[in-house]
Amino acid sequence: MNLLDEDRLFPVETRTKDIARELYLSVKSLPIISPHGHTQPIWFAKNEPFANPAELFVTPDHYVFRMLFSQGVRLEDLGIQRLDGADVETDPRKIWQLFADHYYLFRGTPSQLWIDYSLQEVFGVTEPLSTATAPAIYDHIDACLKQDAFRPRALFDRFNIELLATTEGPLDSLEHHDTIMESDWNGRIVTTYRPDAVVDPDAVGFKANVEKFGALVNEDATQWEGYLDAHRKHRVAFKKRGATASDHGHPTAQTANLSEADKRALFARVLQANVSAEDAELFRAQMLTEMARMSLDDGLVMQIHPGARRNHNRAMFDQYGPDKGFDVPGRTDYVQALRPLLDAHGLEPNLQIILFTLDETSYARELAPLAGVYPCLKLGPPWWFHDSPEGMMRFRQMATETAGFYNTAGFNDDTRAFCSIPARHDVARRVDSAFLAGLVTAGRLRESEAADLIHDLTYRLAKKAYRL
Amino acid sequence: MNLLDEDRLFPVETRTKDIARELYLSVKSLPIISPHGHTQPIWFAKNEPFANPAELFVTPDHYVFRMLFSQGVRLEDLGIQRLDGADVETDPRKIWQLFADHYYLFRGTPSQLWIDYSLQEVFGVTEPLSTATAPAIYDHIDACLKQDAFRPRALFDRFNIELLATTEGPLDSLEHHDTIMESDWNGRIVTTYRPDAVVDPDAVGFKANVEKFGALVNEDATQWEGYLDAHRKHRVAFKKRGATASDHGHPTAQTANLSEADKRALFARVLQANVSAEDAELFRAQMLTEMARMSLDDGLVMQIHPGARRNHNRAMFDQYGPDKGFDVPGRTDYVQALRPLLDAHGLEPNLQIILFTLDETSYARELAPLAGVYPCLKLGPPWWFHDSPEGMMRFRQMATETAGFYNTAGFNDDTRAFCSIPARHDVARRVDSAFLAGLVTAGRLRESEAADLIHDLTYRLAKKAYRL
Amino acid sequence: MNLLDEDRLFPVETRTKDIARELYLSVKSLPIISPHGHTQPIWFAKNEPFANPAELFVTPDHYVFRMLFSQGVRLEDLGIQRLDGADVETDPRKIWQLFADHYYLFRGTPSQLWIDYSLQEVFGVTEPLSTATAPAIYDHIDACLKQDAFRPRALFDRFNIELLATTEGPLDSLEHHDTIMESDWNGRIVTTYRPDAVVDPDAVGFKANVEKFGALVNEDATQWEGYLDAHRKHRVAFKKRGATASDHGHPTAQTANLSEADKRALFARVLQANVSAEDAELFRAQMLTEMARMSLDDGLVMQIHPGARRNHNRAMFDQYGPDKGFDVPGRTDYVQALRPLLDAHGLEPNLQIILFTLDETSYARELAPLAGVYPCLKLGPPWWFHDSPEGMMRFRQMATETAGFYNTAGFNDDTRAFCSIPARHDVARRVDSAFLAGLVTAGRLRESEAADLIHDLTYRLAKKAYRL
Repeated sequence: MNLLDEDRLFPVETRTKDIARELYLSVKSLPIISPHGHTQPIWFAKNEPFANPAELFVTPDHYVFRMLFSQGVRLEDLGIQRLDGADVETDPRKIWQLFADHYYLFRGTPSQLWIDYSLQEVFGVTEPLSTATAPAIYDHIDACLKQDAFRPRALFDRFNIELLATTEGPLDSLEHHDTIMESDWNGRIVTTYRPDAVVDPDAVGFKANVEKFGALVNEDATQWEGYLDAHRKHRVAFKKRGATASDHGHPTAQTANLSEADKRALFARVLQANVSAEDAELFRAQMLTEMARMSLDDGLVMQIHPGARRNHNRAMFDQYGPDKGFDVPGRTDYVQALRPLLDAHGLEPNLQIILFTLDETSYARELAPLAGVYPCLKLGPPWWFHDSPEGMMRFRQMATETAGFYNTAGFNDDTRAFCSIPARHDVARRVDSAFLAGLVTAGRLRESEAADLIHDLTYRLAKKAYRL
Repeated sequence: MNLLDEDRLFPVETRTKDIARELYLSVKSLPIISPHGHTQPIWFAKNEPFANPAELFVTPDHYVFRMLFSQGVRLEDLGIQRLDGADVETDPRKIWQLFADHYYLFRGTPSQLWIDYSLQEVFGVTEPLSTATAPAIYDHIDACLKQDAFRPRALFDRFNIELLATTEGPLDSLEHHDTIMESDWNGRIVTTYRPDAVVDPDAVGFKANVEKFGALVNEDATQWEGYLDAHRKHRVAFKKRGATASDHGHPTAQTANLSEADKRALFARVLQANVSAEDAELFRAQMLTEMARMSLDDGLVMQIHPGARRNHNRAMFDQYGPDKGFDVPGRTDYVQALRPLLDAHGLEPNLQIILFTLDETSYARELAPLAGVYPCLKLGPPWWFHDSPEGMMRFRQMATETAGFYNTAGFNDDTRAFCSIPARHDVARRVDSAFLAGLVTAGRLRESEAADLIHDLTYRLAKKAYRL
Repeated sequence: MNLLDEDRLFPVETRTKDIARELYLSVKSLPIISPHGHTQPIWFAKNEPFANPAELFVTPDHYVFRMLFSQGVRLEDLGIQRLDGADVETDPRKIWQLFADHYYLFRGTPSQLWIDYSLQEVFGVTEPLSTATAPAIYDHIDACLKQDAFRPRALFDRFNIELLATTEGPLDSLEHHDTIMESDWNGRIVTTYRPDAVVDPDAVGFKANVEKFGALVNEDATQWEGYLDAHRKHRVAFKKRGATASDHGHPTAQTANLSEADKRALFARVLQANVSAEDAELFRAQMLTEMARMSLDDGLVMQIHPGARRNHNRAMFDQYGPDKGFDVPGRTDYVQALRPLLDAHGLEPNLQIILFTLDETSYARELAPLAGVYPCLKLGPPWWFHDSPEGMMRFRQMATETAGFYNTAGFNDDTRAFCSIPARHDVARRVDSAFLAGLVTAGRLRESEAADLIHDLTYRLAKKAYRL
């Protein structure tokens, strides 16, 4: 028995399905380029076995535990730590069983696709996960994890990952990247510069962060010049660990381009207590433009991930901290918001900005028209709640006609769940094959063009967009 | 000749169509759960025959007369009453003929599906409605209506309705529900508590409504405590008539959670003349949170129907009053708007809130992410202009991947047109069968899972969501 | 070899494809009604040969050069004039080659469909355009253009255009229309009144425009009554040149209905220097209502094209002027914005307003509900970035169920690229055939209804909507 349909995600009509399958098979074995994500470098630095199935599949995956929580499962029973240190479930078998008991909730979701893929393709599981099969599947996976072939580096090699980017904050020591680079293992793992903790005045401990940020590179980052120089030096340090990109997770896409005097005054204000919401927004906005300017010098590609309303529920944040599934998208404007940055630097031939969105209404209305004319703009793939078969198809349908394919940046998986990396790339390759096949049978694309494009979408565009 | 294609709304590809048909046939005969709608309890209390075809199909259905009006047909000629009492057409044959003359306008709309279903399945009509066939079809339906088998209770039984919820205001006597309950008829008809007339300061006669509202239950509802107690007592009275839910039709989804002092001051202000738009909005917002609190005590499920801009045209409102097809949707935010209520009570295990929308952009961006994590939130089915085949399919495509199926609330027909109830449930069952069949042939769902889900979507989820 | 698939844009399933093809073939040869567009009347007045392939395909088509620019091609190298008069490429062969070298960028875009159609159907080209084929195709087209059969009037006749509307500003002499009308050629080319230059206080040279506008018709247009009278007289002049419509390209759909005193005061303010953004917006808003009033008198159909954020990049505007691909859509509200106009005149039986949008989220939420009830409102076809196969299909899917087909206005091509006119109408006829065929095989429409509707959508509705 197979968990996975060999022809999953292909169109149903025979000729279109055949073309899609042929396209897919032509890229199925291409190496994975994963230029943006949130796996842990320590996995590959230490190469220790993953602890157990629950820690591999349940605890790190907010797609999983948010769905269970929505149906009344307590996070404590899933082993999610509380900030007050109260007891939570520690038996991974119980956590796994609870997950399996509720696995039917994921019907129709991408999580089911990803998890079934991981179960079958990574661990060789052949029975659907359910209350009944949970114990045996646990035992099977647990036994696998004790083998060397399932340690992080071995899986990385087996997944055929050519490059994996992680994301680190500006206060991170990057020691695990150093360990990886110094090791005799050849896996290419690079970092990404994500300075939100010292760019967002609303970040917890912002001022202390800024002070530490400067101290790490011998700059007084509480002064505007020192602050900018500290960024420059940190960017150099990240580039030494392979970084080719920075990443910016702001509540909005707002940019600004203030005068020198206004920037200094604003910076002084945001280092005070009780920063106003307007000043916080304006500072983040200005910093996107500053980061663009630094990109012109050092060549890092900018990624902007705007639109998440973080920590939507106060009690959840107080009890469990951030990243517990309570970040929710909101409407996001790009056309007015990006104008200050684009007026300042939007025509520079060396600038590369990859735009993401959680607001699909912006694909056809704003993002494709912007990327379809500004040389510096590329569209990132569907992000987060939208990196699903329907979401990916909507992106192609709404962005392609105005932006074309060549103003998009290929796929990235953006995952915290290691085993979902090949699963997500597989979904993307299938959906892109289906979309291209549909264009072929609609008489909009020649088969030779589709054959060329599927390689671009799978491999070439990501490398080009991220300067890899 | 048939008006209806046996395989209507199924996918065209053979295997997918076969699966869809099989799924549909497995639920075709399930009883109808209609937990939200606007039929008249007096029909079932008195069980008098419907007067004529025009009163059954044309006059109560704003989908019908708004379309005719948009193409230049005068409402007077359709027998719609004017507030000034001026003469309107009273001959139902003329009204029917006018409707039939313009029936081509409904091509491609759900109205045509619903009406053709009613004509064929309820009345046995076999010829398409047109200028030529109108008189004979009128005679045929009219003759039917004179038979006992076409009285409201008989149709209710024939439609296989297990439960029908109507919607009443807080000043309604509920006498018809009493009559039904006391009768020897077993049809289960329940009311729903819709307090807008005493919750919305912009409602016509708001202050007088509040006074009457209190008097009905011996409370001084012009005082804050008395006002809240009056709600509590009315909710009890509605529960006695079977209500398991309240319903709230606000212009926005805004909620608030003010201090006691601020609530009292606000309530005092909204009882004055010339309430500001801000105060009216804030009071509605606060009352959603108050209603949630009462739900925690009495277990009524909350329904929120936000986003209609009511009575868009001043002259129409002045001449014909409300509900004449001039309520138009607008953009609706949920993420920020619901935050005060959700911060206060969003994690309570006993709270159940069913969210509706007229703004489809919120499905994937806001509603599915919210319902996919908050235990108290469920997504209502596509509402109003969106309760159509394309609208229902978009809902499944945009909401399922993030919310799953089990955070949705099944179907409700929300209709004023009695004969459209089986028609609308039939459309919903077909569209859901089509959607599930598509997931099966896309390799995203096993057939056994689809077989289980179609029962959930048709029957179980509605009963569970509405605590029936 | 063919560039075009005979069955392009039809559905893939056999029966649906057969129905679509049959529908398409029934309207393939119908004359083209082109009631809105931006071709140049001078072409038909002078009937001189088009200069060369580059001037026909590249230079006038912002779809083309914005895509090339987005991938780093300099506008100067495409022969686009700079405002500073600096040298740009003047060799059309080099421009053509550069275009061909980058033609792969248009894969999946409507531009490729339009251009391939023009190459094959207008010029008989049989090889795909590429770096290798560019010189030979240039020579072939260039040779064609030297023949009389490829002069503008001959192409107009060959394209089977029954009526072509151009768009002129209020300061245009309309001399070319006079020339055409006085000629012995029977081609019907009409103008359209587009008064933005004297209606938008943000227009370059607004006050001087107003003065000249009045002088042309012997009115003092700097006085409110004279200004309105000047509009009335210009509208008469445009009607004499065949105009049946006005057109209004505003940043938003905002309307207003001020008192006489407020209008006068506002008009006085916008004629001063340094008009505030609020006053500019309010004046444009008021003028839409004034134009509606004039339409009641003279019968011109109003077109409203709102939502473009023009000249998004300051440096591009300074170097190249307007219309260089840097107009980008933004969110557009209709429900609140149109209310003042619709409250004043929305029920008038003689008013006809055709609404366009660049914000697809408004189709189902706002535009279809408004057009589905207001007798004066009709929905224009998908505009600009959305006049593509996917865009057209989304329009039908999102607008039809609420507005029906008969509240839509048929197709218009809105193009500056003459050879794309038959190409665009062909795409529209195919997409509409595909949509109707899908309704037929979904059991939602009878074949006889579809056969009727495809004629309406292709021909009758445009003539009716534009009063042609």
